Amino acid sequence: MNGVQNLKKAYPWIQTPLVVGAPMRLISLADLAVSISRAGGLGFIGGGTESDLDVHLSRAKALLAESPIASRSNTLPVGVGFINWGSDLSISMPVIQKYRPAAAWFFAPKSIASLVQWTISTRNASPDTEIWVQVGSVSDALAVVKSVQPDVLVVQGSDAGGHGLAQGAGVISLVPEVSDAVDALVTKEGGYSPVIIAAGGIIECRGAAAALALGASGVVIGTRLLASKEAKIAKGYQDEVLRAKDGGQTTVRSKVYDNLRGTTGWSDSYNARGIINNSYTDAMAGLDEDENKKLYNEELNKGDDGWGVEGRLTTYAGTGVGLVKGVMSAEDIVKEVRQGAKDVLAGLTAKL
Amino acid sequence: MNGVQNLKKAYPWIQTPLVVGAPMRLISLADLAVSISRAGGLGFIGGGTESDLDVHLSRAKALLAESPIASRSNTLPVGVGFINWGSDLSISMPVIQKYRPAAAWFFAPKSIASLVQWTISTRNASPDTEIWVQVGSVSDALAVVKSVQPDVLVVQGSDAGGHGLAQGAGVISLVPEVSDAVDALVTKEGGYSPVIIAAGGIIECRGAAAALALGASGVVIGTRLLASKEAKIAKGYQDEVLRAKDGGQTTVRSKVYDNLRGTTGWSDSYNARGIINNSYTDAMAGLDEDENKKLYNEELNKGDDGWGVEGRLTTYAGTGVGLVKGVMSAEDIVKEVRQGAKDVLAGLTAKL
Repeated sequence: MNGVQNLKKAYPWIQTPLVVGAPMRLISLADLAVSISRAGGLGFIGGGTESDLDVHLSRAKALLAESPIASRSNTLPVGVGFINWGSDLSISMPVIQKYRPAAAWFFAPKSIASLVQWTISTRNASPDTEIWVQVGSVSDALAVVKSVQPDVLVVQGSDAGGHGLAQGAGVISLVPEVSDAVDALVTKEGGYSPVIIAAGGIIECRGAAAALALGASGVVIGTRLLASKEAKIAKGYQDEVLRAKDGGQTTVRSKVYDNLRGTTGWSDSYNARGIINNSYTDAMAGLDEDENKKLYNEELNKGDDGWGVEGRLTTYAGTGVGLVKGVMSAEDIVKEVRQGAKDVLAGLTAKL
Repeated sequence: MNGVQNLKKAYPWIQTPLVVGAPMRLISLADLAVSISRAGGLGFIGGGTESDLDVHLSRAKALLAESPIASRSNTLPVGVGFINWGSDLSISMPVIQKYRPAAAWFFAPKSIASLVQWTISTRNASPDTEIWVQVGSVSDALAVVKSVQPDVLVVQGSDAGGHGLAQGAGVISLVPEVSDAVDALVTKEGGYSPVIIAAGGIIECRGAAAALALGASGVVIGTRLLASKEAKIAKGYQDEVLRAKDGGQTTVRSKVYDNLRGTTGWSDSYNARGIINNSYTDAMAGLDEDENKKLYNEELNKGDDGWGVEGRLTTYAGTGVGLVKGVMSAEDIVKEVRQGAKDVLAGLTAKL
């Protein structure tokens, strides 16, 4: 697979290794996405399940107009991420047609048939918009490659913050196995071999270098960007990201927050990783869900004080949260991760 | 940290990057451990909670006498792994004193006080035996470094097969965070900075290269060695390791097998990862534990047929099980992982 060449062709402004900003719903909006692309990465707007995509893309377009980035076929040099089960195709397609983002990232469709529909519709609406599909298992990777031939496969390991498969492997074993399985499939059945991008637990240069060693052509960072200047995030949430350490112990994968917030559309196979706080510990201790919801809603009134170990508000973050050490600009984060990964690999090669 | 130099001084026969054979209880015995060390790795005998350590070390000594390996201070050039909560100090120490293994690997002690006792006793019994301690969290790593100053810290991620912390992070975030936290501790309080070795999900060259990028000075392989010629393993179990794919979906962390086998000594914070079969699915479906135990014990009579998706016998394996593609000699596995990791890193550096 010539992953890097394919990426450079599709996104001519990028520098490699490619650093991608995760499309975090409500948090990764135009300012963050544009800053990431300006730094030679690829920023995604977290479209999620929202219907105000036009607002965010309009803002991105305006920001980019100030100082344009050379993109392929004049696509908008940012991507958009969808949580497909909750997104409305008929609202989304006109927006994609209007703004022509460089990439559309699909995640958690209701079915493969739905994913096919989204892919075909997007390719019709904007032929130069590349199709990214996020998966968390080898079987899903193969099903996706067979059915939609995505340009990019985002392989998400179980260390990721926010939503993903409830049951899964970390990138250490998932990325190489997906890579081998997809190669074997394409060798056998023909078709396009997607670029593989790794996600989940990658915070800084060492994780990025590791992901490249595992066979990825680029890396997604999410949790780290919660501590970027451009993220749309409450201070209480961001402070928790800076405070939390030892994420394997202080974060957990759970359905609790979806339940408390009334987000009922995720299939049983998904949950989300976040920092453990009173909402979770009370739920585990058997607190009645209605009572827990009531407390959650009351906590919303506390503003920034609603986050923290003694707080109750949703604090999605990955196991690498302890490696997030300060708030930086997205530009500095992207450049540090990219250059740092190269330095790590060069340093190791010199030693071995 | 000068991890590699310290390793070469302690184990002069090794080649780097160091490949370590996990001390898998009942499976990693003298033949496997000696073969690994002969290949320039470091093999561990899985002493576990067994009392027949003398038998295995005697066998290792005899194998090594056929063609000696130059070790430091004439220690036996293999290690021994203990599951400390279930091991008898008074039986183990005379054996350590008698055979002087190059390393003693401690895991899951009842308390830090117990770990201190094991460490002091081992250092008294055999001053040249290095102390390895396995941890699965940043907090445990710091507690261990503070209390016993181990020579080596084995940092085990949640992808590992067999026993480990029930709740944890993969190596992608755990290894760099432990590395930073230990460095900060030693900088602040002085003392010895342990060599960090990564474990969990590392099957072949890409995982090994990734672990080095994350900051480890060597890697532990376990699941891969289940498919070595020298492993003491039932054919039914080994066949399952070769069959299983997509380990994030087909393996699971659980207490079920400890319960079925009556292994009650593990603390609540530990469980074990194995391939999903009927014992597990029936337990999840609510089958009475006594009935499940009865079925388990009946299954033992089936021999190799007791393993498989429709089988019931314990099949511990990590999420990387799908990357195990055939049975090889331990020598070939160690050499392939070591040389392959170097090739991966050199190839990446040349491209970047």
